Amino acid sequence: MTRVDLNCDAGEGFGPWRMGDDAALLDVVTTVNVACGLHAGDPLIMARTVGMAMQRGVAVGAHPGPNDLWGFGRRDVSGERVDDLATLVAYQVGALQGIARQEGGAITSVKLHGSLSNRAAVDDLLAVAVAQTIRAVDAELVWLVPAGSVMVRAGQRAGLRIAEEVFADRAYDDVGNLVPRSVPGAVIDDPQACSERAVRMVVDGGIDSAGGRRIRLQADSVCVHGDTPGAVAAALAVRHALEHAGVELAPLAAVLG
Amino acid sequence: MTRVDLNCDAGEGFGPWRMGDDAALLDVVTTVNVACGLHAGDPLIMARTVGMAMQRGVAVGAHPGPNDLWGFGRRDVSGERVDDLATLVAYQVGALQGIARQEGGAITSVKLHGSLSNRAAVDDLLAVAVAQTIRAVDAELVWLVPAGSVMVRAGQRAGLRIAEEVFADRAYDDVGNLVPRSVPGAVIDDPQACSERAVRMVVDGGIDSAGGRRIRLQADSVCVHGDTPGAVAAALAVRHALEHAGVELAPLAAVLG
Amino acid sequence: MTRVDLNCDAGEGFGPWRMGDDAALLDVVTTVNVACGLHAGDPLIMARTVGMAMQRGVAVGAHPGPNDLWGFGRRDVSGERVDDLATLVAYQVGALQGIARQEGGAITSVKLHGSLSNRAAVDDLLAVAVAQTIRAVDAELVWLVPAGSVMVRAGQRAGLRIAEEVFADRAYDDVGNLVPRSVPGAVIDDPQACSERAVRMVVDGGIDSAGGRRIRLQADSVCVHGDTPGAVAAALAVRHALEHAGVELAPLAAVLG
Amino acid sequence: MTRVDLNCDAGEGFGPWRMGDDAALLDVVTTVNVACGLHAGDPLIMARTVGMAMQRGVAVGAHPGPNDLWGFGRRDVSGERVDDLATLVAYQVGALQGIARQEGGAITSVKLHGSLSNRAAVDDLLAVAVAQTIRAVDAELVWLVPAGSVMVRAGQRAGLRIAEEVFADRAYDDVGNLVPRSVPGAVIDDPQACSERAVRMVVDGGIDSAGGRRIRLQADSVCVHGDTPGAVAAALAVRHALEHAGVELAPLAAVLG
Repeated sequence: MTRVDLNCDAGEGFGPWRMGDDAALLDVVTTVNVACGLHAGDPLIMARTVGMAMQRGVAVGAHPGPNDLWGFGRRDVSGERVDDLATLVAYQVGALQGIARQEGGAITSVKLHGSLSNRAAVDDLLAVAVAQTIRAVDAELVWLVPAGSVMVRAGQRAGLRIAEEVFADRAYDDVGNLVPRSVPGAVIDDPQACSERAVRMVVDGGIDSAGGRRIRLQADSVCVHGDTPGAVAAALAVRHALEHAGVELAPLAAVLG
Repeated sequence: MTRVDLNCDAGEGFGPWRMGDDAALLDVVTTVNVACGLHAGDPLIMARTVGMAMQRGVAVGAHPGPNDLWGFGRRDVSGERVDDLATLVAYQVGALQGIARQEGGAITSVKLHGSLSNRAAVDDLLAVAVAQTIRAVDAELVWLVPAGSVMVRAGQRAGLRIAEEVFADRAYDDVGNLVPRSVPGAVIDDPQACSERAVRMVVDGGIDSAGGRRIRLQADSVCVHGDTPGAVAAALAVRHALEHAGVELAPLAAVLG
Repeated sequence: MTRVDLNCDAGEGFGPWRMGDDAALLDVVTTVNVACGLHAGDPLIMARTVGMAMQRGVAVGAHPGPNDLWGFGRRDVSGERVDDLATLVAYQVGALQGIARQEGGAITSVKLHGSLSNRAAVDDLLAVAVAQTIRAVDAELVWLVPAGSVMVRAGQRAGLRIAEEVFADRAYDDVGNLVPRSVPGAVIDDPQACSERAVRMVVDGGIDSAGGRRIRLQADSVCVHGDTPGAVAAALAVRHALEHAGVELAPLAAVLG
Repeated sequence: MTRVDLNCDAGEGFGPWRMGDDAALLDVVTTVNVACGLHAGDPLIMARTVGMAMQRGVAVGAHPGPNDLWGFGRRDVSGERVDDLATLVAYQVGALQGIARQEGGAITSVKLHGSLSNRAAVDDLLAVAVAQTIRAVDAELVWLVPAGSVMVRAGQRAGLRIAEEVFADRAYDDVGNLVPRSVPGAVIDDPQACSERAVRMVVDGGIDSAGGRRIRLQADSVCVHGDTPGAVAAALAVRHALEHAGVELAPLAAVLG
């Protein structure tokens, strides 16, 4: 039977501020990526988010980002040292582990955020440094990475378990990269279309690119979003479509087997 | 043979800023309390400080504080929830563990900073919450606490190993509390006097209070400071006086046996 | 003809985060208090909020708070020096003036936020220091203060124009102070009741206290809130009730004459 | 008689942290650029720095930078919107004006910091946006810019008074730009050499480039640094050499006449 994980980001508030409807989204997904305090999140929000996930049997992953709260981790990090960026990952993964243990749980995965992820997807040196850091912090952690990015090989070489994620609401180019958001048609808004794409990527192991070519994608996890109106409904639609297609939803560890 | 640990705070910079001569101080002590990013310190400074400690065989402890960078963790926390403050500790201890693992090492102790320590020294509910949190994050950690504070009992009840620290440069009152800094005579500036007090507290297990009474103190560790001119020389004087009195300097784990 | 100002706080987001429906609220009020970056707000949000206010002919005031983003300026400031807190006000008022000039406008008032306001309402030394600072920064600014607080006299002695504000949704005690939120009945949820109270305070110059005594209140401005569900509707109800009672809504400068 | 201003940055601490020996440096210069809280500095440090400058008759300028405390305003801002960066300048200039008024003084100039300055020196759109912002905030302010940068023309077109600054300790290339620090020979360490270069640039209106060509430079102000060992001595040597060559040291407003 085909299995896939459904992941979302959550805990992306800070102090008095909130972002997205975390409770509703956690009812839909099987893995949650929790912001760790450097681009969003703070210890209290992290503890609440981990608690909500544990109540629902949702697996918890760390979602480390650049050290940039005001810019939400989206400002460019191309000028920062590779080893320094890896150290930010060590800090954040460790911090969420501390919070998870206080809540009586544990974390099972790591997924990079924002401009840190964008750079690691194409910068092999950064991908290798982050992979080695994750392995040093906890060799049991799964690294959840964009399907087909340079992180896949970097993680495998470091001896990490790798899970590849696909995006149901984004167009892919002919070599399997995401079409940039600035390009018309890059973002797929229609929930029905998203659901169909999710099913095809998971069941068929591939999708038609924006250029009309058939590309292969390893879909261990489907990413859904929660910070826009209608996001929860769209996530739910993806989940139902997958279940209707006979796919079993399960946390990353179960998907990787 | 009498053994004692010598501890100092370090890694108390942030971004481009530094505080104290960490390298010199790390040549003197046996345990270093590393700031964890909320009142001081950042991931890069933490990694450098842990690296310097490992090179010298100095044991590494976490030094969690209030979430207050601008106020250096000295602003009042009496209005914050006990559970929230404990969650800050979980975050920071976990973060330093992540950094230490990346550096190929581990941490062995926790010591609270600033107004968080001041409150936990007298607020039993906070002391208990922090003790349970430390135990949940890592039951092997030693909790380094002010000698005779309510943290001693709270830690013991939680099943933690407790180390009590004394201050060579501070006067004690008749019940064993530190005389507040605002009281004349509270701070002992003379390095010679500090060294003699350190030896007496460690060898005799007590000291004369400011009021002239003999008080008992459990001295598992002596705290030295590094952020004032002459601080490193004073720390060295304390170390030499202890060694001259036949006391063996050793990290906390060895002192507790 | 009786005139009154209607004021609300806005621009209380930070970076990627938002709080309340500023655009809708700015359609209702005559003065907006704009957060200035230390407890909430940032330069970009400030510029947008000032721009929205200018489009609607709403007067702009500064809303300076404690230096405490994570705590939203609600954490205790009783341990901070009076002169330091006044310096925070100088910084924030000046910053909003810079933004307002860039937008082609100007600010007309200052209202303190959170724990800074709570302390200044009862601490005469702080109230005097803040009053002198506002006067030094710009002697034309109106200081918007809680009706009957020690800030009224402090501001008058400093030569500032003072506007007193009342709260339609809060109970008052027998001497004219707000009943603390923790006391049952302190917050009045019913929009109809709020509207009636607003009218009485403005038209009659007083209200019945929680203890049933008639108290006098100078109502130059009525404060409405925007950060709860239904807040905009409640604010609109207050405005309509005042207009229906023949009260003219006008910005502070026009109310003070 | 030839006149020139001598400027340095100061107030570059934050909370408990300090950078450089501000008091000693303020005894040497005629204009001080005060950090405004976004890349360094905070309201209390700003007030102290302004107070020290006023006691010594040193003119006060704003030193606005990127919104990046951890990176000290050196992280890249090429991805940020031009109008947003200009808004950061409005905020910071206004904030320092507020502080200066509280201290009974005023500011006379603005100089950009770090990566904000680096980008404005070559990005005409940014230079124009910042110039218009400074003019809108206070049309009397002098804009202190790198000699020969695109900021010169942008400021003049906006109707600002422009002062051009030169660096005694940096090599220039054949078109008058600073040789990047990463190039050997870019930084001139020898105090004697720096002093001679300062005199030549001010008295002769030019200097030999690293490539050996004679280039022209408008030297209204010479920049000296304070954050390295020996910096104050080097600054003093520059001042004495200029005075010995018959140059009068004077604040920017007097130099521009």
